[in-house]
Amino acid sequence: MKCRICRTRPREFFIRSYKLPLCRRCFLQRFEKRVQAAVEKYRMFAGDDRVVVGISGGKDSMALWKVLADLGYAIKAVHIHLGLGSYSHTCEDLISGYAAQKGYPLDIVRVETIFGAGMQEIARKVNRASCQACGTIKRYLLNQAARDAHCVVTGHHLDDGAALLLGNLLNWQEESLSRQYPVLQGDRSLAKKVKPFVLTLEEEIRYYSELCEIPSVEEKCPLQSGATSSTYHQAMELIERKMPGTKIRFYKDFLRKNPFEGKSDRDRLRPCETCGYLTVKAQCNFCEWKQRVRSDAQG
Amino acid sequence: MKCRICRTRPREFFIRSYKLPLCRRCFLQRFEKRVQAAVEKYRMFAGDDRVVVGISGGKDSMALWKVLADLGYAIKAVHIHLGLGSYSHTCEDLISGYAAQKGYPLDIVRVETIFGAGMQEIARKVNRASCQACGTIKRYLLNQAARDAHCVVTGHHLDDGAALLLGNLLNWQEESLSRQYPVLQGDRSLAKKVKPFVLTLEEEIRYYSELCEIPSVEEKCPLQSGATSSTYHQAMELIERKMPGTKIRFYKDFLRKNPFEGKSDRDRLRPCETCGYLTVKAQCNFCEWKQRVRSDAQG
Repeated sequence: MKCRICRTRPREFFIRSYKLPLCRRCFLQRFEKRVQAAVEKYRMFAGDDRVVVGISGGKDSMALWKVLADLGYAIKAVHIHLGLGSYSHTCEDLISGYAAQKGYPLDIVRVETIFGAGMQEIARKVNRASCQACGTIKRYLLNQAARDAHCVVTGHHLDDGAALLLGNLLNWQEESLSRQYPVLQGDRSLAKKVKPFVLTLEEEIRYYSELCEIPSVEEKCPLQSGATSSTYHQAMELIERKMPGTKIRFYKDFLRKNPFEGKSDRDRLRPCETCGYLTVKAQCNFCEWKQRVRSDAQG
Repeated sequence: MKCRICRTRPREFFIRSYKLPLCRRCFLQRFEKRVQAAVEKYRMFAGDDRVVVGISGGKDSMALWKVLADLGYAIKAVHIHLGLGSYSHTCEDLISGYAAQKGYPLDIVRVETIFGAGMQEIARKVNRASCQACGTIKRYLLNQAARDAHCVVTGHHLDDGAALLLGNLLNWQEESLSRQYPVLQGDRSLAKKVKPFVLTLEEEIRYYSELCEIPSVEEKCPLQSGATSSTYHQAMELIERKMPGTKIRFYKDFLRKNPFEGKSDRDRLRPCETCGYLTVKAQCNFCEWKQRVRSDAQG
């Protein structure tokens, strides 16, 4: 079978959801073009804007790092070191190695330096599910790292968007549904947040990573076991296998015409009395947790 | 483990989604009470209203038949004989046998008598997926059978509602979403349609059928292979297994506050020029198909 785009070279990749056979060269060109198209379509950032990219070491963020660098954007890569023992060391080594190899600038922010404890201990001390505590802290620190930048960029892809959308619908999270968009505008102390992989499938990122030999951490996060998002991913995959194309249509039609738009209560946000970060409480979770974990350590 | 309701007899059933252990007697009482509660809550019909119940011979409609009879409602059972060879004979024999055993009145409407052909041939001749053609014809004939009745009653249960809701959301069928409710009010030639099992789980119906030794057709419909609804059922089950209670919350919260309400275009309906049944076209599918299938048979 030939590549559907050039119609001359043999197919090397088959993107199931689009029923699209592609050769290596057309796949790569199309991949970059689609990321560029998403950045422009949703007005994420322009050529000279300074953007902060959160790099976890996983396949998605590593691929995003490379493709945005190749497209010529002014990236500042930030890795949040979670203090999870050997897992975190593996992530740091891999990311630092790739940055050195490519000549990419990289900042590392250490949770242990700030909290005097790693993520596992923090989650236990503040009595939260680890993914919830970790998400809150990573969002806060990336936001802080973007203080002088145009926006924070993350590697969430179309499959993540569809799974999140499914979960939000199953639980009728109208507030989250109203905000679920590839661009979340900045607001006072909150940086603008954007997702350039919004139109890219996980499958495409996997092919891209293989093709470009981008290293990534294969080990699973030791805290991840309880993530509900993986159940929504599995349910979407079950449906996609039986009805290819459903996932893309489901998510893109939602983006085109979000029926929950305007149900946001972002106006309720006010500055945290300690740090100024926007929150619905007097003090934001990050500051409250930092005090609690630090005072426990001293007590 | 004891029954959660009487707290004296041992548990015989465990309803997973409610985490509810029940003895036989409390299960049966609760089952009937919940059907009665749904009928009243959604103002489906009253004690002396004549209601038409569509009986396919499957577990759900057979159980509905018995529970509504036991609750004392004035039921007219109607079976649509689809003309699908041995499968349809099995259904008819089982339903007729149960009606005779219980002394329930029963009408049988034969698709072959009306169309001069069985469902498989009809679907082929009108060039539709068999489940789509069959659904249209069954809805039409049940509606016709209810001409002098208060409403048409079907055995759709909570799992069906959740799976349909999921499918409608995945495809953003806003028109269907606006109408997805346990009661669809009548409109000129359209009978009111109600679903007394709307708050009942398939699991509960299965227990009830076993307990009351209600016979049902186990054989699958020979045309059913392509039904997309089974994929949505499977996806919901996958999620329910990991997060028990999600299915009930998902569906009930939707019923409480349907975010798509008011997006219906039912006003576009007008009477079919042949039979008067409401349709969006000049002639309804049923009449158009009947003419086509009959003229093919004569030609």
